[in-house]
Amino acid sequence: MSTDPLPRANIKDVAREAGVSPTTVSHALNARGQVDAETRARVERAALKLGYRPNRNAQRLRTGEAHMIVLLSSMPFAVAGGPSRLGFMMEVAAVAAAAALDRSLALVLAPPMETGRVPMELLDVDGALVIEPSAGDANLDYLLRRGLPVVTIGKPAEDPAGGAAMPPYVDIHSGQTTRLLLDHLHAQGARQVAMILGSAQRNSYLEGRAAYLDFANAHGQAPLLSLVDEVKGENGGREAALAMLAAEPGIDAFCVPVDAFATGAVAAIVESGRRIPDDVMVATRYDGVRARTSVPPLTAVDLHLEEVSQQAIALLFDHLRGDTATRRVDGPAAQLVPRLSSARRS
Amino acid sequence: MSTDPLPRANIKDVAREAGVSPTTVSHALNARGQVDAETRARVERAALKLGYRPNRNAQRLRTGEAHMIVLLSSMPFAVAGGPSRLGFMMEVAAVAAAAALDRSLALVLAPPMETGRVPMELLDVDGALVIEPSAGDANLDYLLRRGLPVVTIGKPAEDPAGGAAMPPYVDIHSGQTTRLLLDHLHAQGARQVAMILGSAQRNSYLEGRAAYLDFANAHGQAPLLSLVDEVKGENGGREAALAMLAAEPGIDAFCVPVDAFATGAVAAIVESGRRIPDDVMVATRYDGVRARTSVPPLTAVDLHLEEVSQQAIALLFDHLRGDTATRRVDGPAAQLVPRLSSARRS
Repeated sequence: MSTDPLPRANIKDVAREAGVSPTTVSHALNARGQVDAETRARVERAALKLGYRPNRNAQRLRTGEAHMIVLLSSMPFAVAGGPSRLGFMMEVAAVAAAAALDRSLALVLAPPMETGRVPMELLDVDGALVIEPSAGDANLDYLLRRGLPVVTIGKPAEDPAGGAAMPPYVDIHSGQTTRLLLDHLHAQGARQVAMILGSAQRNSYLEGRAAYLDFANAHGQAPLLSLVDEVKGENGGREAALAMLAAEPGIDAFCVPVDAFATGAVAAIVESGRRIPDDVMVATRYDGVRARTSVPPLTAVDLHLEEVSQQAIALLFDHLRGDTATRRVDGPAAQLVPRLSSARRS
Repeated sequence: MSTDPLPRANIKDVAREAGVSPTTVSHALNARGQVDAETRARVERAALKLGYRPNRNAQRLRTGEAHMIVLLSSMPFAVAGGPSRLGFMMEVAAVAAAAALDRSLALVLAPPMETGRVPMELLDVDGALVIEPSAGDANLDYLLRRGLPVVTIGKPAEDPAGGAAMPPYVDIHSGQTTRLLLDHLHAQGARQVAMILGSAQRNSYLEGRAAYLDFANAHGQAPLLSLVDEVKGENGGREAALAMLAAEPGIDAFCVPVDAFATGAVAAIVESGRRIPDDVMVATRYDGVRARTSVPPLTAVDLHLEEVSQQAIALLFDHLRGDTATRRVDGPAAQLVPRLSSARRS
């Protein structure tokens, strides 16, 4: 949070780099006026080197064309794709796209790519919403380097390297949400609660981990925590749960915020010959298709993503208009959605 | 299908209308060169009148910027929004956005708007995917008038007025899908099968209706068909089912392809004191959150939307590149997903 984002290169920077006048830069890049091929090539190289693009904001304001914003998930395909496809990101997308259109913003969708990273440089956007970025997220870094307005859903993880300024965000209170789930499992009678989290430097994991260690300490329980690489998806959750159950057979509940990992944990519990919830309870975070269609259905939380999405678009709209005073918006508190997976043993 | 779409106004048309040279039009609209205020205003009025926009395609090809396509649902908010939000359109969107990015296309999401119609004129897109358009769909008409490449998912309804050429489409075989559901209900023992469809001029309804009338005729059953305005949403389905059950108490199954209407029909059956599936079976089309989380879960079909979405993006990509030979792509056949709502009485 110590330095400002890199200022965006302007037409004068390109002119200086190419050794020509700003008018020549404009003509060269817009195929107008008389510019010889060699000069045009030199200008194009300079523009590419400096990451210059014409001020589309001004163009769009003049033509009445919609500003373009992009919605990005920081999660890899293994946890955000597949059966989670109808999940968190798309729920945000549906509300955010409508809220954006109401403000003459066009929302471009950049879902996790099975084939690799999002080709951000092709998307000539005016701003971005990024869902729960981890530290060093390449797309977020690209956007901040370009000096584009960015809002994140969930507090951005602080980059230990401390490169760019932290973008404004909607706080979704990941620590409180984790406590809500853990306290519920305890109230239902669980006394050996294990936790599976992602290993990425993602703020929700950091807050979740701190909440779990506090919980274990408060209840005099040894922490049973496993961190799993997100790219392993369901099977990562399954393998972690199998290993934990083998090492500590007395585990009577799993708190698994990542729903793909929770699906894997459910499989592991069943494989180990245990019953849900009678032997082991399970709770996850996002109340999506995975939680609802699990057998038995999983206790989860309502994150009020409709309100979160609307807050995020409103915040991004302010920043696009140059009103950058608000750095943090207080999102709604999550509410428990208790289901059969954590029903108290009779 | 008799006439070509209106040709898009070009810079020469604007120049003629404004009584200036094409170069002056270019300078006026791009704020370049010396153009006096009065001439600029005249050019802007002419451009507005003719619906002219600069050839962004050429600009984008030159700059390497992504082409923009928009995904539109033709369904009103009452059936496509709310609990259906994670539904058909968003499932298509997730796959289509990734398939589009693989081809350097940016997918803009235009979900059904609670506050009214999509402000299409603000979205400077290069092409569009439209889901199951009804006859006279305002967004589709706008796109075709602009001469933009459009692909529809599901055969477009033929406009009785026969205005524009029919866009190319991915056939999702709505007649076959309806037959699949009806034959299943019959095989499960249903002998008085009622049907609830939307009243819009949407091809899936027209094919579904024809399939139902054939089915009723083949089984010597009087048709029990109700057409409901989509804007009525769940309650439209509920009221239709209540009225049908009152008029024909012997109904032992409902085939309700629109999932929001199916949710309403389930409520009506329970309200009437009947049990599902023992007294009345229910089947719907889209296997989404509504079908899966209904009590009991609803028999539906797997439309293979992942494959459909990829076919649609590939077809649109061909048309964007000028390869317009293919007018129809054969989508995958739907597969039955039998659930408790149509389990045979023991």
